[in-house]
Amino acid sequence: MPIQMELRRIVISEVDDHQYVVLNEVGGERSMPIVVGIFEATSIDRRVKGLETPRPLTHDLIVSAIEQLGGEVQDMLINDLHEHTFFAVLRVRKDGELVEIDCRPSDALAVAVACRAPIFVNESVLGEALDDE
Amino acid sequence: MPIQMELRRIVISEVDDHQYVVLNEVGGERSMPIVVGIFEATSIDRRVKGLETPRPLTHDLIVSAIEQLGGEVQDMLINDLHEHTFFAVLRVRKDGELVEIDCRPSDALAVAVACRAPIFVNESVLGEALDDE
Repeated sequence: MPIQMELRRIVISEVDDHQYVVLNEVGGERSMPIVVGIFEATSIDRRVKGLETPRPLTHDLIVSAIEQLGGEVQDMLINDLHEHTFFAVLRVRKDGELVEIDCRPSDALAVAVACRAPIFVNESVLGEALDDE
Repeated sequence: MPIQMELRRIVISEVDDHQYVVLNEVGGERSMPIVVGIFEATSIDRRVKGLETPRPLTHDLIVSAIEQLGGEVQDMLINDLHEHTFFAVLRVRKDGELVEIDCRPSDALAVAVACRAPIFVNESVLGEALDDE
């Protein structure tokens, strides 16, 4: 059962290599942290802040490639957690069909934020990954 | 008239923020440098060296999104140079049609290297951007 989440916090450290985002359950109390790379963290941060760039950045290119090929990003789903690695799919609607594209949650989040698509996490993954803070 | 190029050198500096790639004319003498971001430079470098990653990286996601939506990367073309900024398109073949997706040359190069697609530069751009070294 997928649970809808929202981006609550992006933590970017300039002094070490630990960036993470915190997702919060929509209409609920649960939250989970996901470690992401500095590139994806700044990409997500830039989009949340609405910073414009003169040329399309990498995640903008993903969105425009999908749209120019007739697809539409429906949502993203973090669907598995295996040996401390989260797995995700970008779910794209095309000609009435659902195409699931395997990716890292960080890329899926950057794309979802870029096109305002909803974020989902499987209940089983959320249960395992709960933020204890 | 597009000229086919090949990747000749990737220069990554750890001490400043100036990474660039050098493209060389296939079967010719001319070459041109393009400044790229550190993320795209390492992404290109990793692919040239054939380094495998357990999960798809961002440019792998672009390739798989295109392929899962029925497209095939035909090639990339650096088609303009305007106020020191290069412009490029990723050219994707889908259902017999050519779809041109606007992007930065650095992303186009990372995608082209990932799927071994040819690299082209318009003659007029190459004329303006010649490497004098």
